[in-house]
Amino acid sequence: MYTAEIIAVGTELLLGSIANTNAQYLSRELNALGIGVCYHTVVGDNPERLRAVLETARGRADILLTTGGLGPTYDDLTKQVVAECFGRKLVYHPEVEAGIRRFFETAMHVPMTENNLRQAWLPENCTVLPNAAGTAPGCAFETGGVHVLMLPGPPHELECVFSREAKGYLQGLSHEVIRFHDIRAFGLGESAVEDLLGSRMERMVNPSLATYAKPSEVRLRATARAATEEEAEALLAPVTAEVEAVLGDYVYGVDVPGLPALCLALLKEKHLTFATAESCTGGQIAQEITALPGASAVYRGGVVSYWTEMKASVLGVPRDILDQHGAVSEPTARAMAEGARRLTGADFALSVTGVAGPDPDERNNPVGRVFVGLATPTATYCRHLELGRRQRLRIRELSVNHAFDLLRRSLTGLPVE
Amino acid sequence: MYTAEIIAVGTELLLGSIANTNAQYLSRELNALGIGVCYHTVVGDNPERLRAVLETARGRADILLTTGGLGPTYDDLTKQVVAECFGRKLVYHPEVEAGIRRFFETAMHVPMTENNLRQAWLPENCTVLPNAAGTAPGCAFETGGVHVLMLPGPPHELECVFSREAKGYLQGLSHEVIRFHDIRAFGLGESAVEDLLGSRMERMVNPSLATYAKPSEVRLRATARAATEEEAEALLAPVTAEVEAVLGDYVYGVDVPGLPALCLALLKEKHLTFATAESCTGGQIAQEITALPGASAVYRGGVVSYWTEMKASVLGVPRDILDQHGAVSEPTARAMAEGARRLTGADFALSVTGVAGPDPDERNNPVGRVFVGLATPTATYCRHLELGRRQRLRIRELSVNHAFDLLRRSLTGLPVE
Repeated sequence: MYTAEIIAVGTELLLGSIANTNAQYLSRELNALGIGVCYHTVVGDNPERLRAVLETARGRADILLTTGGLGPTYDDLTKQVVAECFGRKLVYHPEVEAGIRRFFETAMHVPMTENNLRQAWLPENCTVLPNAAGTAPGCAFETGGVHVLMLPGPPHELECVFSREAKGYLQGLSHEVIRFHDIRAFGLGESAVEDLLGSRMERMVNPSLATYAKPSEVRLRATARAATEEEAEALLAPVTAEVEAVLGDYVYGVDVPGLPALCLALLKEKHLTFATAESCTGGQIAQEITALPGASAVYRGGVVSYWTEMKASVLGVPRDILDQHGAVSEPTARAMAEGARRLTGADFALSVTGVAGPDPDERNNPVGRVFVGLATPTATYCRHLELGRRQRLRIRELSVNHAFDLLRRSLTGLPVE
Repeated sequence: MYTAEIIAVGTELLLGSIANTNAQYLSRELNALGIGVCYHTVVGDNPERLRAVLETARGRADILLTTGGLGPTYDDLTKQVVAECFGRKLVYHPEVEAGIRRFFETAMHVPMTENNLRQAWLPENCTVLPNAAGTAPGCAFETGGVHVLMLPGPPHELECVFSREAKGYLQGLSHEVIRFHDIRAFGLGESAVEDLLGSRMERMVNPSLATYAKPSEVRLRATARAATEEEAEALLAPVTAEVEAVLGDYVYGVDVPGLPALCLALLKEKHLTFATAESCTGGQIAQEITALPGASAVYRGGVVSYWTEMKASVLGVPRDILDQHGAVSEPTARAMAEGARRLTGADFALSVTGVAGPDPDERNNPVGRVFVGLATPTATYCRHLELGRRQRLRIRELSVNHAFDLLRRSLTGLPVE
């Protein structure tokens, strides 16, 4: 099996200005191609350190992928250093120049500045990997059994060049396939999962089974290697079945992108719609569902009733409920969900009201107290959470996941409360 | 100056299940302490590879920080490998056991499983770094001039242990300070910025000036090293002033967390409120503003009018506008903003309607066509964007930033359209 190292070049990563999401993207893609990723390395815009990193990498991986440092600015050094390290001259590629000029004309609608032509210098005898999303093309070459791919740094350009160009180059190399299935569960802790599955997990090698703690769910990944996809899948089938049997209805899906996408698919299948009424989650349920293509088929819309008065005036929460129980209460959560259903005509409505912090509310509800409501055509439900003194964004994230869990339980006929 | 390497241990990173946000967090924190981060490395749950990575790292950095692999499960190998590599025995810390038991009782409300006690084994003669957010404590020790800090992997635990415990340990070590200022601009491309500032940037060493391309803004960082904070600041002052002068009102702030936070601060200062009416951004403006503590002082709430009918029924967009111009149009954007203002009584309201893709809308508006509206007490504005065939989430992100840019221009008396 081929092994790969992903080398990100960029001082902004070492300063913490951005996270290395490129390595995450490439890792997922390479694993799917049956290429095992052994290392990620990040190094700054520093030629000596980059050279040393490349020397180490070529001794421990078959495929080196660099990201970043291909742009038009003076600190973009990757090509020079890689070319030097692997004994290749940089030569001017007129066809790349033409592509850069075309990109400026058709996509940028601004005049090209001359420094952009630096991007037409690439190693001799390389495979050019054109960049339809930007001006810096990637390239690939092989020297002494090591394949080197240089890819642009801006994530949308990287993804464009990888998926359209680099993937095809790599597909020719691999002989073994890795397949994995992600089993996703909500409502259980990681230790509890390992208590239920622990001894089984320890003895497993191929397929292997590992847990990944997430802020508010548990994910298990079963991974198998084999000569063909079919053999790998045959190894995986009994493992995923066993995990699903042990964890029961905490499991919400296998190889699904998450609770929002699952809810979207369930609603679509049943030709049902939903709406939202959010207070402490401030629109995040709406944002997460509408981030998914096709949301318009099932999501009608919602109200962010951040200001208490909006709960009454827009959602129609009775004022005596607000006066008597307060904005953060079970009766308010129920009335918000019912109000959102009424306002939008949707079949289902989710609501959230709670205290995300950092301070308790004016009625002294503690940070982490959250009520999640669900109004359905036949009944209204409410889940009362005490999430404790966590960070504001963690409390919001957990609350959003609880809301989607309520909805998926209701849509699949499971007990909701 | 001390240099650091951040070593993340976890196969889930190499599989691409998560991004290495821990390295980003630590890099930011270490730079602020005057510790230069030279490398990030990611390695899987593999003792041989981890050992080799540690050997390389101790030869090129003064401070090694590991993240992950401290938990209770069998693939948590960091402590064993680090202890072996640095010639330390692991010894049982009864006071750590007491802390783990206490955490389960007070925060988890579930019985502790026995495997959690593995976390009480730590290297002999180390400084224990207690973990108030979880059960796996960190630790720190020094051997032969190299400082090793082991920190837990779950981000909220890492941040808790670092800020409360590890930071103090590191503060004792550093003798030089690094200070930087981030100058943030919206509405200009990276090449344009470099065209304006390029030659100046190339000759600068201390302070240095670098650009960071972001999806829809440009960030410049001026960095200075000196013996004291005052000297570093004196080096930085003329540079930031010059950049601000050259880029003019594209600059929206220095050392501000982003456009949403800037808008929040401006509104708070002026005792003004705002509201939102979102279609293609699906609640993301609301979500971004309410992610910030203190949002309730300025944000009244909003409507996610994803379904066209809600634009009329809830926001009061006249039906003849919707019939004649369609949901994605300038008149609709204006009416949505005015409707949100009316509905909430807020001083300002932002609206967004557009086509985020992947497909054109039913009136054949192309992907990337977006109208951003702003209703103020005196006038209503609209910005028409053609963002092209970008990814759905990029179009949403750009639209959200344009909305906040409209608001900050209006609040600071700059030309809006």
